[in-house]
Amino acid sequence: MRRYNYEKQVEKWDVLEVTADGHSDKNPFVDYKIHGTFTGKHETVTVDGFYDGEGVYKVRFMPSFAESYTFEVTGSAVDGEVLTGEFQVTPAGEGNHGSIRVANTYHFAYEDGTPYYSIGTTCYVWELQSDELIAQTLETLKNSAFNKIRFCVFPKHYDYNLGEPRSYPYEGTPMDSSVLTKENFLEYTGKTEGNHWDFERFNPAHFQHIEKCILALRDLGIEADLIVMHPYDRWGFSQMTKEQDDLYWKYVIARFCAYRNIWWALANEYDLFPKKTVEDWERYAKIICEKDPYNHLRSIHNCIPFYDHSRPWITHCSIQRQDLYKSSEYVNEWRERYKKPIVLDEIAYEGNIQHGWGNISPQEMVRRFWEAVCRGAYPGHGETYMNENDILWWSHGGVLHGESHKRFAFLHKIMCETPGIGLCPYEKCGWDEVCGTPEESTQKQSPVKDYYLFYYSFMRPSFREYHFDDESKFQVNVIDTWNMTIEDRGVFSGKFKVELPGREYMAVQIKRMK
Amino acid sequence: MRRYNYEKQVEKWDVLEVTADGHSDKNPFVDYKIHGTFTGKHETVTVDGFYDGEGVYKVRFMPSFAESYTFEVTGSAVDGEVLTGEFQVTPAGEGNHGSIRVANTYHFAYEDGTPYYSIGTTCYVWELQSDELIAQTLETLKNSAFNKIRFCVFPKHYDYNLGEPRSYPYEGTPMDSSVLTKENFLEYTGKTEGNHWDFERFNPAHFQHIEKCILALRDLGIEADLIVMHPYDRWGFSQMTKEQDDLYWKYVIARFCAYRNIWWALANEYDLFPKKTVEDWERYAKIICEKDPYNHLRSIHNCIPFYDHSRPWITHCSIQRQDLYKSSEYVNEWRERYKKPIVLDEIAYEGNIQHGWGNISPQEMVRRFWEAVCRGAYPGHGETYMNENDILWWSHGGVLHGESHKRFAFLHKIMCETPGIGLCPYEKCGWDEVCGTPEESTQKQSPVKDYYLFYYSFMRPSFREYHFDDESKFQVNVIDTWNMTIEDRGVFSGKFKVELPGREYMAVQIKRMK
Repeated sequence: MRRYNYEKQVEKWDVLEVTADGHSDKNPFVDYKIHGTFTGKHETVTVDGFYDGEGVYKVRFMPSFAESYTFEVTGSAVDGEVLTGEFQVTPAGEGNHGSIRVANTYHFAYEDGTPYYSIGTTCYVWELQSDELIAQTLETLKNSAFNKIRFCVFPKHYDYNLGEPRSYPYEGTPMDSSVLTKENFLEYTGKTEGNHWDFERFNPAHFQHIEKCILALRDLGIEADLIVMHPYDRWGFSQMTKEQDDLYWKYVIARFCAYRNIWWALANEYDLFPKKTVEDWERYAKIICEKDPYNHLRSIHNCIPFYDHSRPWITHCSIQRQDLYKSSEYVNEWRERYKKPIVLDEIAYEGNIQHGWGNISPQEMVRRFWEAVCRGAYPGHGETYMNENDILWWSHGGVLHGESHKRFAFLHKIMCETPGIGLCPYEKCGWDEVCGTPEESTQKQSPVKDYYLFYYSFMRPSFREYHFDDESKFQVNVIDTWNMTIEDRGVFSGKFKVELPGREYMAVQIKRMK
Repeated sequence: MRRYNYEKQVEKWDVLEVTADGHSDKNPFVDYKIHGTFTGKHETVTVDGFYDGEGVYKVRFMPSFAESYTFEVTGSAVDGEVLTGEFQVTPAGEGNHGSIRVANTYHFAYEDGTPYYSIGTTCYVWELQSDELIAQTLETLKNSAFNKIRFCVFPKHYDYNLGEPRSYPYEGTPMDSSVLTKENFLEYTGKTEGNHWDFERFNPAHFQHIEKCILALRDLGIEADLIVMHPYDRWGFSQMTKEQDDLYWKYVIARFCAYRNIWWALANEYDLFPKKTVEDWERYAKIICEKDPYNHLRSIHNCIPFYDHSRPWITHCSIQRQDLYKSSEYVNEWRERYKKPIVLDEIAYEGNIQHGWGNISPQEMVRRFWEAVCRGAYPGHGETYMNENDILWWSHGGVLHGESHKRFAFLHKIMCETPGIGLCPYEKCGWDEVCGTPEESTQKQSPVKDYYLFYYSFMRPSFREYHFDDESKFQVNVIDTWNMTIEDRGVFSGKFKVELPGREYMAVQIKRMK
């Protein structure tokens, strides 16, 4: 029994990593195992470790309590020897609220109870770009309101995405990509010819790099909505065998699950995989549920048909809009159907590329955001502006060229003013308006709400009339969601009229005074 | 037998009116009848006449052939005496193309075969306003692209419509309207108290005035889409008995059916009538089919649920959009379902009033127009801008305050470039574009079309690629539907790329060269 001294303290919800030298003969990714058990006063957690190359094995743990812990790490990798040690967990530092949980059916909060109002974006393979571009993306994110980003473990092959990634997840060599053009790339999608990978030997450097990126996001307060599988593939990573898939899933979980800002997105556009079946997705889900002791959020994203979001392992609906014209407008229906948080991870992207999913205006993007929020859901952004270098935020990160993202901090501030956690469609909402009221008050069936957030979308009323009760007093703000202004209109009661400017994209925020 | 000499000639599709002095005792509207039979070489038409007050009866006829006619008019109104005469019908003059017919399942043409591309507007009671306002409306219409207008025979009681009409359809007196306010008017909707009407005695002056207005429209080349019944009523006109309704319908048909520009709109928002049933609407339809020998177009307009537009007497679907967000986008579905022309008589109005149906932007209105046209349907306009005098185009006419109407002449010019009659959704249209091809070529199942009109709606592609075949040559125009510019991009063949400005509301018109 080797004994480790972990003098360094670790923060609650941070990562404690135990490193062990072990076998490097045979295939350490397959032929040897390692796992650890971490014990404090309030929890005992057993997790798998993983081979990190160069004869080194690692076991990672995220403690949930500020107290003393001990651990035991063992496995065939260390010939059954038991490595033990102890360490101290300190209280969570500033900005560390733990992982995101479903708080009240439709909404999220951090582990410590702080509401989490998701403002997502998508940069599919930002972390597989050059160091310089990655640094630029992180700088952009730092100055943005985004608190969630979707990205992939595997490289991406698609329009505007024909280059090679900085590294590959497996040992081996890729097909010759010099034959690819914007015209012929689809012919290579889903092909495996010309690639030579050992799907039983991971490339630890690929994953180590992704971990650095996950940590960098964590330090910016951004959730890493990790797309573990996707179909935009010319390397064969989307067409591995069951055994190879399972090996991959276990490796990914063992490496990443101790990071508090991880969300598991099983797939992007699961329905576009040529060979995966529902049984496959359900098997991956089973592996996650079994191997991730922290219960990070789990979702699966569609292209056209939704996955059955009522499956119990799915924590929230990760939705791509199914209609060219309506997206966020369906939130009410989806909330009722699934009774889970609705995250609109793709409602088209602001931009000007040729594809209809990537050329909506910033106004329309911001409109879809407000429409979603006031219906009690969480919208996601993406940006696809043509440029000389084919660096599109949606895939590569870099800088933002658009206008919608500038309006999200303003929206997020308004979201944070919701009493309790999250908005819910107001049951007496008119047919020609959208209105959110606190989820809380609705769950209590309060006849008068403490808070109303009306949104008029593309409509341009010159005034609106309101009548909630005859007793309460309400403070009324008129919000221009595009120009980001808030006008305090004073206090009203009974039936009252609010003058509006007859412009698009106006909201009326009404707070009951106590 | 009295013999009349009709020295005046009448144009084909104009109105020949026979006037007869007759009984003015008892109730001439009910107790006496008159009818006429008009005979030329190619047709014999029998129609009812009507009592026009002051002891005068009239029988009206619209001849369809340029030839000699004779007539016989008789009935109890003239004690069975037979009035005969003859007249000469001359060829149709300039701008006189006859009545509108359904030409090829989904589209309209005038009787003489000229395609009719409807650009409608709605001014519900423009003709019941002051002489001055009526003159202003006609002047506005004259300078517009509108070639159809929807309006009511009965006065309208609704928000912004609380004033009295210039005349009433019946003898009697209305309720005291000085009690009405914007706040309480709904309490009086559908009430009959305080009104004293003799529903068996029409006020001929009311109808004579409407006829003048129908003729004025005709002279401007505008179809009169006459809403014969509507529920926005405080006078009781929407709640008459069956017998009174039938009397009204027969009177209206006898008076108006000889005007070539008449369309019968049985109702506006038939589903809002408190007491009418499907049996009632079907009975009215039967009366029209029986009494109107010219088969003017017949429709019935919904508020929420559609009437069953598959009923054989319905010549075209007069649709109010059922969804706040999508309107013209449903055209493909409706075309397939009903196999009749789709006329979108209400897709919300450009304006800034408080109601969601009356405050869309001009951009959105023009977008809905193009979206409808490129899907093979006919959109309608309306305007509801707040103003000091509460004169809103949608009800009162007057002048236009908006921006959308300025774009309709441009659109109409493009519509007129369609080979054959009307557009049809292109069967190979992409999911992120709208495209119309000639109805004709589709009915012939041509693999390559002579004409394509692509529309990109709110999307903003920087380019699009097209490939129809490898042989044909195509002339390509890039159209900015909002700024009304057309750029000739030259001739292309095979697979080709068209650069676009990355703005909203662009169209690409592609004409096969012969």
